Amino acid sequence: MNIGIVGLGLIGGSLGLDLRGRGHKVLGVSRQERTCQIAIERGAVDDASMLLSILTDVDIVFICTPIFAIAPTIKQLIPIISPDTIITDVGSVKRAVVEAVTPLWQNFVGGHPMAGKEYNGIEWAESGLFAGNPYVLTPIDTTPPWAVKRLEEIVRSLTSHVYLCHPEDHDRAVAWISHLPVIVSAGLIDACMGETDLVVLKLAQQLASSGFRDTSRVGGGNPELGVMMARYNRDFLHKSLLSYRQSIDNLIELVEQEDWQGLEKRLQQTQETRSQFYS
Amino acid sequence: MNIGIVGLGLIGGSLGLDLRGRGHKVLGVSRQERTCQIAIERGAVDDASMLLSILTDVDIVFICTPIFAIAPTIKQLIPIISPDTIITDVGSVKRAVVEAVTPLWQNFVGGHPMAGKEYNGIEWAESGLFAGNPYVLTPIDTTPPWAVKRLEEIVRSLTSHVYLCHPEDHDRAVAWISHLPVIVSAGLIDACMGETDLVVLKLAQQLASSGFRDTSRVGGGNPELGVMMARYNRDFLHKSLLSYRQSIDNLIELVEQEDWQGLEKRLQQTQETRSQFYS
Repeated sequence: MNIGIVGLGLIGGSLGLDLRGRGHKVLGVSRQERTCQIAIERGAVDDASMLLSILTDVDIVFICTPIFAIAPTIKQLIPIISPDTIITDVGSVKRAVVEAVTPLWQNFVGGHPMAGKEYNGIEWAESGLFAGNPYVLTPIDTTPPWAVKRLEEIVRSLTSHVYLCHPEDHDRAVAWISHLPVIVSAGLIDACMGETDLVVLKLAQQLASSGFRDTSRVGGGNPELGVMMARYNRDFLHKSLLSYRQSIDNLIELVEQEDWQGLEKRLQQTQETRSQFYS
Repeated sequence: MNIGIVGLGLIGGSLGLDLRGRGHKVLGVSRQERTCQIAIERGAVDDASMLLSILTDVDIVFICTPIFAIAPTIKQLIPIISPDTIITDVGSVKRAVVEAVTPLWQNFVGGHPMAGKEYNGIEWAESGLFAGNPYVLTPIDTTPPWAVKRLEEIVRSLTSHVYLCHPEDHDRAVAWISHLPVIVSAGLIDACMGETDLVVLKLAQQLASSGFRDTSRVGGGNPELGVMMARYNRDFLHKSLLSYRQSIDNLIELVEQEDWQGLEKRLQQTQETRSQFYS
């Protein structure tokens, strides 16, 4: 199969390595010539160009740009590709993308490979990045079943765990498990910044170990990514945040009232619930 | 030196292994005969007993019981040990312990080795548990300097990083970096429990990966430990919690008002601040 990839970063580059490894011909597009060169050198693509016209004869295109560039890129692609080409994306929110793209292109299937690393860029691309990780596809009522089936086969060949769901269900789920944790964790760091006694602040920095490290990790991550997820999944993140504030208020009340039995019961529930996430 | 250890769990047992390895004679006390036997078999103590009277001739005693048992244990020890014996503890809060014990025993130096594992009990004891980790000592104005110096030498011999500070400063610092994260993280799990759409909840469980795993880890931990820290560090935890709620409220407001520039600025600050904790 001829496969196009627009955007040769960590995800686009890693897709290219895997898809070439499975015998497909992969053509890449990047805005930067240097990225095209590295992608070719690293074997992530058979050929690469700064021009979308390299994608004239592809069967499927993966749009691996930042979220805001997905729909504009597809608009530019339309005059170039044939009408039966499948387009998919790898954005971490789906409702906004699917709503914007569906009127433009019928054979569009939203996608979200839930794999990543701390760093981005073609330099960090690796084969096997998606193996064993979730890869969500979000077809809607009007998506042609043959297009879903073909994309699903390709994604399964990466040995990802494939989940099919509605774009809205995807966004609500990732609001809980990806986007809410970023704000929760950023709030922890933000609160610590408020310590005005420098002796205590210095001591806190010296004593911080695995508990603080883990809980503060995603809140200390890439600010642009944090804003993107909040912006494009604003409604569901906001709902999750209000629910979270209620949970925190309840926990504060237990501490205020020194209701240690109530607190223990609550912590038993969270221990039990968390085990269901990793059973 | 003759060293006594009361409470032969993960911390007491690991201390015993390290101290015997450095040539000290270690005598242990546990309420359970089986624990005494395992401690002897594992080489964590030279001898062990269910009776405190085994500690008649020790130079220093480490109290490694749960926090609530520290002062009662020391009351029982007083008729047995000689007046120049140093007593220390390993509790994770210090102000309440130091206030309770100082009137009982002059040569008391509060201590907090910040090392731990997911599991507790003598079975998990290991040599080198404290190496490279913080070990806080919390002498006060009335603590004899010679007692601090002698304990500090022993703790340094474990190749721990030793910090000396006031009990209150310790408790304020660990409220930020140990105790607040537990509530923040428990709140995240608690909020997810509120998702009433079972399709979305199931999907969230299936898609949860490293971000949720890390942020929810300490909130899914041992409920008894969580309650102990809240109970004995209630005032400083409560202050941290109110500060945290303010941070979360501010972040929610940025999302509500779609102030993406403001959110990006805030996330840049948290990224920068976190790097200061692990520089």
